Amino acid sequence: MTTRPDDESSSARSPAIDDIREAARVIAPHAVRTPLLRHPVLDARTGGRVLLKPEVLQRVGAFKFRGAYNAVSRIDPRRYPGGVVACSSGNHAQGVAEAARLTGRAAVIVMPADAPAIKIARTRAMGAEVVLYDRDREDRDAIAGRIAAERAAAFVPPFDHFDIIAGQGTAGLELAEDARAAGLGLDAVIVPCSGGGLAAGIAIAVHDSFPAAEIFTAEPAGFDDLARSLEKGELVRNERTSGSICDALLSPVTGRLNFPILKAHLKGSLAVDDREVADAMRFAFDELKLVVEPGGATGLAALLSGRLEAAGRTVAVVLSGGNVDPGLFGDIIAGRRLA
Amino acid sequence: MTTRPDDESSSARSPAIDDIREAARVIAPHAVRTPLLRHPVLDARTGGRVLLKPEVLQRVGAFKFRGAYNAVSRIDPRRYPGGVVACSSGNHAQGVAEAARLTGRAAVIVMPADAPAIKIARTRAMGAEVVLYDRDREDRDAIAGRIAAERAAAFVPPFDHFDIIAGQGTAGLELAEDARAAGLGLDAVIVPCSGGGLAAGIAIAVHDSFPAAEIFTAEPAGFDDLARSLEKGELVRNERTSGSICDALLSPVTGRLNFPILKAHLKGSLAVDDREVADAMRFAFDELKLVVEPGGATGLAALLSGRLEAAGRTVAVVLSGGNVDPGLFGDIIAGRRLA
Repeated sequence: MTTRPDDESSSARSPAIDDIREAARVIAPHAVRTPLLRHPVLDARTGGRVLLKPEVLQRVGAFKFRGAYNAVSRIDPRRYPGGVVACSSGNHAQGVAEAARLTGRAAVIVMPADAPAIKIARTRAMGAEVVLYDRDREDRDAIAGRIAAERAAAFVPPFDHFDIIAGQGTAGLELAEDARAAGLGLDAVIVPCSGGGLAAGIAIAVHDSFPAAEIFTAEPAGFDDLARSLEKGELVRNERTSGSICDALLSPVTGRLNFPILKAHLKGSLAVDDREVADAMRFAFDELKLVVEPGGATGLAALLSGRLEAAGRTVAVVLSGGNVDPGLFGDIIAGRRLA
Repeated sequence: MTTRPDDESSSARSPAIDDIREAARVIAPHAVRTPLLRHPVLDARTGGRVLLKPEVLQRVGAFKFRGAYNAVSRIDPRRYPGGVVACSSGNHAQGVAEAARLTGRAAVIVMPADAPAIKIARTRAMGAEVVLYDRDREDRDAIAGRIAAERAAAFVPPFDHFDIIAGQGTAGLELAEDARAAGLGLDAVIVPCSGGGLAAGIAIAVHDSFPAAEIFTAEPAGFDDLARSLEKGELVRNERTSGSICDALLSPVTGRLNFPILKAHLKGSLAVDDREVADAMRFAFDELKLVVEPGGATGLAALLSGRLEAAGRTVAVVLSGGNVDPGLFGDIIAGRRLA
């Protein structure tokens, strides 16, 4: 891996399929190789062959562990004796905290005070120090930068980073391998998307095995910066950073390294509203028996709401995370919210 | 399969491994081949290697489809033009209803009026006619017998039947195959148990591949007729048929055909109380992101409560079903019930 960009050098090169294969070797001892699931009820409902990649079954309950471990384990502890620092509303936090714990590094996670309680509690349970900030009045990057400088710790970005994208791409590598092993092609893939780390990694991996597969992202309505960026051909930002049930998908803008990858590979980005997301979570509870958090259910919501026509096709849907507060989950499945 | 007992002949012969292999071929076009899952958090918690067989991911949300399809698809429609009749509080109902639908047969299911609403609704949604009865005042077998006679329909028993045991055994066949493919042995297996169809089938299949594996059943405390039957060497009944959260595991007594199989293969039967079951359901929600119904969680409850020592061993746990009312599930995960 002599060609992997050093974290001080230019990050302009995108990960290639070999970088994702190397990431797969790096994370293998600690990550879950999540299965590729099928369920008759999904095929009956859509008229297609639906494959589910349930990253809810991943270590820490979301795909984020893949990229976090790939990035954190490569950080030189002699250069960064203070360990690692990250900003996250929840799943990246847990991924970095767990990767730091497994590799014997200290971790500080800067989290918004209004992050789901379950995500804050789980991050602390993994041994990380959590620093809370006010999303409306404080600058999390400034807080993280100060901590990194004071402690000689390495900053681990959530998506805009070569090792993160390569790590998340391992989910796509597995998806493609398992589809092939089952004797299936892939006509389309839908990936929940915020900053674009998972989507970029999966796009590279799936494109390598199935160049004709159409790759879509699924964003919360009103936070569809990627759809608008693709349309305009350059990065545009979301106007708001709160106001959707999809707490995990509220990044203001797609990553700089991620955007060209997505521009090259995506067929489009599908927007789903909170009610469609809640419907998908209820469907996952009732029929699939999987716990999916709002942001993790946007791909399934896009499928079930008919944003993507699946009849007669083989469509893979990534369920990207399952860390949802029990109170909110109970309200949604019982139809007390967004029914 | 010339030696398979006709349903009018003696059912004294137990299914053998070849009968389970044949059942696997019969159900393959319609059943889900559920994966064998691992999760780092379970290994860390127990100090062992824990393998999960999540039958919550099975068609109809529980293992029952396996046996039901194996039995229903073999019934001669010329002999039974009225289709099939079954008695069930829920999961067998759905299994038989779905098998009947898939094979073009009519189905009448006799269900207790206090069965979980979700199970009644799902059974109807699969096209079955549901006949409700009063659990305390009416005899369901008499009702089912009358319907079978009136309509020339075949009665499909829930567990005490050659084809049902062979069908449920396919879960054990897959479990053994996948453990072997992963290069793992099996030191112990824990199976939720009521009438003993799943446990007997899995015991036969696992014993064939891993003769030294210890096989345990997990029963609700107070409904541990199998534990007491094993101790006494003959069938004893539960005193009550209600009063546990585990609605799926309230059969009064182990099946006659099932008991000798279980006597030959079981190391023991573990009893867990409702709070331990609720703890296991919360763990499955919080950490595994799987929806498990109370009865389906007894095996996990036995593991997590330390009934079975897993340290240093490879232990498989069957999660047998996930059909739980959203209200009850929400109350349990939020700690409003049995916390």
